Amino acid sequence: MASIFSKIIAGEIPCYKVGETEHSFAFLDIRPQQKGHTLVVPKKEVDKLFDLDAESYAELFAFAHKIALSIEKEFDCNRCGMAVIGLEVPHAHIHLIPINSLSDMTFSIGMSLEPAEFQQIAELIGGNI
Amino acid sequence: MASIFSKIIAGEIPCYKVGETEHSFAFLDIRPQQKGHTLVVPKKEVDKLFDLDAESYAELFAFAHKIALSIEKEFDCNRCGMAVIGLEVPHAHIHLIPINSLSDMTFSIGMSLEPAEFQQIAELIGGNI
Repeated sequence: MASIFSKIIAGEIPCYKVGETEHSFAFLDIRPQQKGHTLVVPKKEVDKLFDLDAESYAELFAFAHKIALSIEKEFDCNRCGMAVIGLEVPHAHIHLIPINSLSDMTFSIGMSLEPAEFQQIAELIGGNI
Repeated sequence: MASIFSKIIAGEIPCYKVGETEHSFAFLDIRPQQKGHTLVVPKKEVDKLFDLDAESYAELFAFAHKIALSIEKEFDCNRCGMAVIGLEVPHAHIHLIPINSLSDMTFSIGMSLEPAEFQQIAELIGGNI
């Protein structure tokens, strides 16, 4: 069965899309740790990120690099944090989160935002990549 | 003034070295979240990881990929987690940590190990890269 991320990439489940490349896709986390929290995923459904082949891995992180710089530009933060955990959804993903302190990326329940704000944030980040 | 990581890379401060490439260096975190917790750093002293040029960034993450696979091979874990935070030491670094649950990478105070065990772990991880 396709992962929830594969369904998002296929357009079967809606998302706030930030951008995409040939092999990677980026969208907002629906329960963000902070405003701007973005997920970057390979289109190919792989559970463990480090099982990606070298080329797909490099493309994914190069795309994450651009998004992280956009997050640092658009949000009032010390820097963009990055995390790969992957114990919940079996489809590799990189978290990018604007942070000012370690407590900004503890992966607690996350915040709730209005659709219009999600849309605005996705366009803000996507506008620089 | 050189960062503590630059001093480690220069051999002025001892470390448990895991390996190195032309532009990157890996060694064990001295207060590991879990046994096997490794730091991967660019030799060039840059505060924010996403300020690295594309080539150095790609080399750093490619090196981290090999180390993560070695960690997954050698430690009893669900997978290798990755984090980039960087609010304490102003020299970009990637954390690689073998994890079984989210609580394995909360960046609490960390554990204390004997030098012989650190040495053994560094050789174990370094042996596969």
